[in-house]
Amino acid sequence: MTPMRFLTLALLCAPAFAADLTDQYKPIADKIIDAALADNDGYAKLAYLCDRIGARLAGMPSLERAIEWSAATMKADGLSNVRVIPVKVPKWVRGQESVQLIEPYAKPLHMLGLGMSVGTPPGGITGDVVVVEDFDQLEKLGTAGVRGKIVLFNEKWVNYGATGQYRRAGPSRAAKLGAVALLIRSVTPLAMQIPHTGTLDYDEAQPKIPAAALSVEDALMLGRFAANHVPIKVHLEMAAHMDPDADSGDVMAEIPGREHPEEIVVIGGHIDSWDVGRGAQDDGSGIIASLQAVALIKKLGLQPRRTLRVVFWVNEENGGRGGEAYRAWVGDQVKNHVAAIEMDGGAEAPRGFGFGGGMGRGRGAVGDPHSMELVKQIGVLLNRIGAGEVTPGGGGSDIGPLTRDGVPSLGERSIGTHYFDWHHTETDTLDKVDPEDFRKSVAAMAVMSYVLADMPEKLK
Amino acid sequence: MTPMRFLTLALLCAPAFAADLTDQYKPIADKIIDAALADNDGYAKLAYLCDRIGARLAGMPSLERAIEWSAATMKADGLSNVRVIPVKVPKWVRGQESVQLIEPYAKPLHMLGLGMSVGTPPGGITGDVVVVEDFDQLEKLGTAGVRGKIVLFNEKWVNYGATGQYRRAGPSRAAKLGAVALLIRSVTPLAMQIPHTGTLDYDEAQPKIPAAALSVEDALMLGRFAANHVPIKVHLEMAAHMDPDADSGDVMAEIPGREHPEEIVVIGGHIDSWDVGRGAQDDGSGIIASLQAVALIKKLGLQPRRTLRVVFWVNEENGGRGGEAYRAWVGDQVKNHVAAIEMDGGAEAPRGFGFGGGMGRGRGAVGDPHSMELVKQIGVLLNRIGAGEVTPGGGGSDIGPLTRDGVPSLGERSIGTHYFDWHHTETDTLDKVDPEDFRKSVAAMAVMSYVLADMPEKLK
Repeated sequence: MTPMRFLTLALLCAPAFAADLTDQYKPIADKIIDAALADNDGYAKLAYLCDRIGARLAGMPSLERAIEWSAATMKADGLSNVRVIPVKVPKWVRGQESVQLIEPYAKPLHMLGLGMSVGTPPGGITGDVVVVEDFDQLEKLGTAGVRGKIVLFNEKWVNYGATGQYRRAGPSRAAKLGAVALLIRSVTPLAMQIPHTGTLDYDEAQPKIPAAALSVEDALMLGRFAANHVPIKVHLEMAAHMDPDADSGDVMAEIPGREHPEEIVVIGGHIDSWDVGRGAQDDGSGIIASLQAVALIKKLGLQPRRTLRVVFWVNEENGGRGGEAYRAWVGDQVKNHVAAIEMDGGAEAPRGFGFGGGMGRGRGAVGDPHSMELVKQIGVLLNRIGAGEVTPGGGGSDIGPLTRDGVPSLGERSIGTHYFDWHHTETDTLDKVDPEDFRKSVAAMAVMSYVLADMPEKLK
Repeated sequence: MTPMRFLTLALLCAPAFAADLTDQYKPIADKIIDAALADNDGYAKLAYLCDRIGARLAGMPSLERAIEWSAATMKADGLSNVRVIPVKVPKWVRGQESVQLIEPYAKPLHMLGLGMSVGTPPGGITGDVVVVEDFDQLEKLGTAGVRGKIVLFNEKWVNYGATGQYRRAGPSRAAKLGAVALLIRSVTPLAMQIPHTGTLDYDEAQPKIPAAALSVEDALMLGRFAANHVPIKVHLEMAAHMDPDADSGDVMAEIPGREHPEEIVVIGGHIDSWDVGRGAQDDGSGIIASLQAVALIKKLGLQPRRTLRVVFWVNEENGGRGGEAYRAWVGDQVKNHVAAIEMDGGAEAPRGFGFGGGMGRGRGAVGDPHSMELVKQIGVLLNRIGAGEVTPGGGGSDIGPLTRDGVPSLGERSIGTHYFDWHHTETDTLDKVDPEDFRKSVAAMAVMSYVLADMPEKLK
């Protein structure tokens, strides 16, 4: 083979834009990864947030303590332009709640009201339960089978998107047929008598009925009763209600860009969490990994070409007002947002990033091919920690308003083995976050965000 | 190789007593296994016990309902000599209970009192918490470090035998040094905010102090507080107390032997369960698999040489009086007990049996080699369902009094993947028992007990 023919073949076989970013940033990326893998400070911050501040739903005083602590921590890390953008957040209050089995016998069931649910009238609701496994079965029952009843969706776990529909749309679908309350099997693959909360989406055209999740075990048992034609009656009491909107905010800090401070790579997650558990995986790990990524870049004396901004968005769980408030706050500077990265899938071992591009593309969208190639070149730098996979799709709820307006968006992705075992429950506590996996998550967020903020080209 | 030399080699290589029982019982064993694998009636019985009768601790009315239902079910299955032997059982009553974190902040912890614990004085106990990970650390603290304090054993999970020591002996070990109450990390490998109960063993020489298990998560969090020198204070309230002994009983039924009705193979498990959960794996699965094994043998028209007896012993969990009462009831007929098999490790996929022989040998003991060989030959019959492994050790708490007096004892063994995730908790519910694994357990119990009751030789 002549040298010329060899060169031609090599060019044909090599990916387009062969390994440019990979080669260019390898020394810096390795330095960042080494620093992240040796870091204990990030996990200590996460421990403080989870163990000492705890659950932090919109409207809870603990959320405001978390915001104050976050701003102070960002300042202590030497970051610039630490700010809290004011955000009015909905204040949903759970209150006392219970479900009591009445027929075939008396026994308290394991329950958790769904976020944003209305409460029951004082004294509660007692009703016969009809059990269905999906929307089709509900529709088949029709008004005749559902009116005046309490509907239980004993739906099978498939995945969060599909199964979560019963939590989100279930209450209004049942109300439309005359149901007086809704119960669902918790949205999780694991049965450990732990009910899972999460927000519902009322259809404003339908009556608002109270809604709660049962543990998988209890839902399955009621399903067996129904299958055996054993009549089921329950008593539901929920004091859930809305208080007036509360004052809260998005917290942010920066490393200003050395050449183009007006151009921004924004990374982060959401600071709020459900009122049960400690919001360790969802999304304490996301915000603290984002912060620590930026803090380590700062500590290493690195200053990327563009501004690197970390944001802790508020109210992701039951309103999304933090993401919208950030979008409103940046105004037409949205065009200077070079990339947005959200980490909101927990800090189990990171496997890489989803990239969906900008231009209003949703999850699962395929981004611009050249931009995807650049992100993949950065991904290669993370192969040494198993986090180099770059796939289509990506983004996150909080950066949705940016993605909608064309900002190229990425979502950090973990292996997600147990995430939905713990999600929105009492069990989302610090012990679920493995320190080594967390350090790798910090490394992944740091390398991806640094290179995106520093590389000559911009994604599109 | 000459034929003679080949034969000599074959004899040398073959196991002693080559495959006699295996060959002799293969047709019957296959018939039994086929029937068990096609059976739905056993699982339906287990469902009724779990879903309709539920938790059944000594002294609870539900235990007496379970005993009545069991006797009626044995009769309906056409078994002979259905009896309830009267047994006086201890009546421990849990009552209201709670642990409230007071310092560093107020929060209820996830707790479950240990079985047989005394209660707190009215109004509860408030105390500083000292956290240790093992008995050595406790001893190092000594009286000076422990007196007047609440001790938390934040012990690591190793296995049930080793880790369970902290539950059993922990309260009196702490009381000896002046502790006013004891907390333990739940005895389980899985952290899902579910506390695990189980009985404690008070040392009569020490003051009896109240004792409770925390969820793994809460114990780990207190452990982190202690490691960071954050003072911990909790408030414990337990209304636990003993009522006078209650009337209960062991339930039994038989297929009388066709040649030696006076000789007995006894199989079973325990009918009582903790007051939380439904006692599905522990030990509803054990008693119902034992019953269904005998019921299927009866249904197939088989009558072994010796009597096959199924017993549901009572009060295994917090006293063991059912096993002792059975031993007392059989009197000197204990010498006619040819074998005893207990199933009390749950009905996950069965992998075989432990055989420890008789003669007072404990768990892990190696039985008589010839008897072991016979049991192994029977085990081969179960290879088709993966349940053919025969290992040293075996037995169970309820048949302990028989083993002590020389009855050859076996324990059915499952793969045990999740057993201690669910053990002694709210999560021990029917859904944890896979119907197919349950059918295989029935098959294993049926084949092993039938052949032991029918084979010409007797174990020793």
